[in-house]
Amino acid sequence: MVDKKLGGAGLRGQSAGETSLCTVGKSGSGLTYCGYDVSDLADNATFEEVAYLLFNGELPTLDQLATYKTELTAMRDLPQALKEVLQRIPADAHPMDVMRTGCSFLGNIEPENDFSEQNRAANRLLAAFPAIMCYWYRYSHDGVEIDCTTDEESLGGHFLKLLNGETPSEQHRRVMDVSLILYAEHEFNASTFTARVCASTLSDMFSCITGAIGTLRGPLHGGANEAAMDMIEKFKSPEDAKEQMAGMLARKEKIMGFGHAIYRTSDPRNVIIKAWSEKLAKENGDTSLYDISVACEEYMWDTKKLFCNADFFHASTYNYMGIPTKLFTPIFVCSRLTGWAAHVMEQRSNNRIIRPSADYTGSEPRKVVPIAQR
Amino acid sequence: MVDKKLGGAGLRGQSAGETSLCTVGKSGSGLTYCGYDVSDLADNATFEEVAYLLFNGELPTLDQLATYKTELTAMRDLPQALKEVLQRIPADAHPMDVMRTGCSFLGNIEPENDFSEQNRAANRLLAAFPAIMCYWYRYSHDGVEIDCTTDEESLGGHFLKLLNGETPSEQHRRVMDVSLILYAEHEFNASTFTARVCASTLSDMFSCITGAIGTLRGPLHGGANEAAMDMIEKFKSPEDAKEQMAGMLARKEKIMGFGHAIYRTSDPRNVIIKAWSEKLAKENGDTSLYDISVACEEYMWDTKKLFCNADFFHASTYNYMGIPTKLFTPIFVCSRLTGWAAHVMEQRSNNRIIRPSADYTGSEPRKVVPIAQR
Repeated sequence: MVDKKLGGAGLRGQSAGETSLCTVGKSGSGLTYCGYDVSDLADNATFEEVAYLLFNGELPTLDQLATYKTELTAMRDLPQALKEVLQRIPADAHPMDVMRTGCSFLGNIEPENDFSEQNRAANRLLAAFPAIMCYWYRYSHDGVEIDCTTDEESLGGHFLKLLNGETPSEQHRRVMDVSLILYAEHEFNASTFTARVCASTLSDMFSCITGAIGTLRGPLHGGANEAAMDMIEKFKSPEDAKEQMAGMLARKEKIMGFGHAIYRTSDPRNVIIKAWSEKLAKENGDTSLYDISVACEEYMWDTKKLFCNADFFHASTYNYMGIPTKLFTPIFVCSRLTGWAAHVMEQRSNNRIIRPSADYTGSEPRKVVPIAQR
Repeated sequence: MVDKKLGGAGLRGQSAGETSLCTVGKSGSGLTYCGYDVSDLADNATFEEVAYLLFNGELPTLDQLATYKTELTAMRDLPQALKEVLQRIPADAHPMDVMRTGCSFLGNIEPENDFSEQNRAANRLLAAFPAIMCYWYRYSHDGVEIDCTTDEESLGGHFLKLLNGETPSEQHRRVMDVSLILYAEHEFNASTFTARVCASTLSDMFSCITGAIGTLRGPLHGGANEAAMDMIEKFKSPEDAKEQMAGMLARKEKIMGFGHAIYRTSDPRNVIIKAWSEKLAKENGDTSLYDISVACEEYMWDTKKLFCNADFFHASTYNYMGIPTKLFTPIFVCSRLTGWAAHVMEQRSNNRIIRPSADYTGSEPRKVVPIAQR
C-alpha cells in the first residue's frame, strides 16, 4: 500500500468523500442544501421543512409536513432518568458538555437498535434537544423543574417557551426558525466529518451525534457567536467599538465572528441574520447593540477587508430575544443536528470505513531497556 | 481553492497527518509504539509503563513509574454523582454506550479547564474506566454497589478484582497487563482519527475520548473479539469447528477475528496473546476452547490464507479469566484510551483544524416551491 502525501495539514481543500446534501462556496459565496439556496429556504421555508429536506432529500408537501410535525411534537418530553442525570450536572458545567452527555445518555435507554430506526433516532434527538438544554439550564440556574412539553407548534417556538416560560411573539418564533435554518448544514466541517468517521464503523446514531457535539465544542468551530457577544457587550457605543477594536487589532487579539475558512468575500448567512437583528433592535427600542455591531462590521471591512460570518449578528439577535450567551452554542447543536444526522445516513448508504494513514516522524526502532537500567 | 480527488473512499492509504507515536505494518507485519516493537513491550514492560511512554515519549525510570502508579491509584474512585448516573443505565444497555456516557458525564464535573491539565484528564480516565465499567456491570446485573477502590497495584489487576470481587492470580494480572499493552495504540485507526478530528477544533480531552469510544463501538472497528467468542463457544470440538466453519464460508457468512485492513501476512499481536491463551487453558485443565480456537486458525489459513488478528485469541483468553463477553470491547476502551489521549496531545502540539472538502453529487440549483403548490 502506497501512502499518498496530501498537500496540506488538516485535509484542507482535499476531498474526503461525496455528498448530495450541501455545497459551500461553490461560486465563492453560496450555500445550498440539496440544491436550494439557503436564502431561499430562510425566506420561504420553516426549520421543520429543512430538517425534512435533509433527512429525505425533498421538501415536504403540506400533508407530509403536518405528519412530521405531529411526530416531532410527540417526542419532545424527556424520560425521568435523563432528567435525573441532568439534575446532577452543576450550573458551572460547560453547556456543550451537558448536550453531549444528554445525547449520550439517551442512547442508553432509547438505543437505535438497527439502521431501520435511524430516522426515529434523529427525530428523537431533534425533538428532545431543546428540553435537554432548557431542563438543565433552568434546574441548575433557577432551581426550577420545568415541564418539557409546550403547546408551541415549531421547535424554535418550543425552545423559547421552555427557556422563558412565556409564549413567544410571532416575530421571535420566526427569527428562531430562520436561525435554525441558517445553522443546519455546512458540508464536511469538522463536527460533521467526526459524525461521518464515527458512522463509517457502522456505529449508532447517538454515538455519531455525541462525537459531533464534542467536536463543535472546540473554540475553533462552535462558540464564535458567544465570543462575539462577549466582545460587543463590552463596547459602550459605535465610536467606542471602533476605538477598542483598533486596540485589539494592535495587540493582535483574535476578533471572533469575522472571516471564514471557505468563504472568500462574504458569508451568505450574514445578510439574512443581520436583517433580523435590525428588526429586533427596532422592536426593542434600544438599538445600541445593533448599532455597535454595524460599527464593528464596518470597521473590520474598512481596516482588514474581513466580512461578518454567520455568527456575528447572531450574537445581537439572540441577545435581543433574551437568550443567555452560554446557550448560543447549544442552539447551534439543536440546528446542526439535522446536518449531522443527514450525513450519518448518507455515509451509511455507501460506506467504507474512514481509516487514513499517517506519516511517521518518531523514534527509530529501539529495544526496551530493563527498567532498573533506565 | 482546488479540490484534489483522493484515490479511494475512506481515505484508505492516504496520509492525513504526522505521528511520532506508532508505526503499523511498516514491514508488512510490525507494530511499534514510539520505536519499540509491541512484542518487546509485551515481554519486558507493564501497561503503566506503556501508558507513560505514550504520554511522555519515553519509558519511565523506576522512580518515575512509582510516582505515576501512585498518582493513578489515587484517581480510581468515582464521584457519587457518576455512580448515580451509572445506576440509571439498565442491564440491557450496550456496554459501549455506558463507557461513552461515563466518560462524557465525568467531563461535566471534572472538566479539563485548559490544556495544561491534559495529562491529569487522561490519567483520570485511565484510572476511572475500570470502575465505570464494573460499577455499572455489577450494579445492573447483580444489584451490588461495589467499592471502586482496590489494593491492586496494576490497572489490570484492579479491573479483575473490581469485576470478580476476588484477588486475581499473578498469572491473570500479567495476562491483563499484556492484553492492555497489545490494544493500546494503532496509529490513525477510525476511533483515533475521530479523537484527532475532535482535538483539531481545540475541544477538551473528555469530548475527544467520548467521540473515540462512540467510533470504536461500531462493528467494523471494535467488537471483533466478542463476535469471535460468540462463534467459538458454539463449536463443540475442533472437528465440529472445522465442519461448521466450512458451512459458514459456503454461506458467505462473515467470520470475525481474521485478516486485517493493513497487515498482509500476520498480526504481530496474535502470537503473543495466543501463547497466553494456551497457558490459561493448561491452568484451567479444560483446554477445549483453546483447542477449538487453534482448529479455527488452522482451517482459515488452510482454506482462505487468512490469519488470526489480535482479537481472535483474545476471546478464549478473556473467557478463561471469567470475563463476560459483553465487557470485551469496554476493556479495549480501557487500553486504547492511552493511544487516543496521546494522539490528542500530539494533535494539539501542532494543530490545524481537520476540515476536508467533499465532491458534490446532489441536485442542481433549484428554487423553493411554495408548500401549497408542492
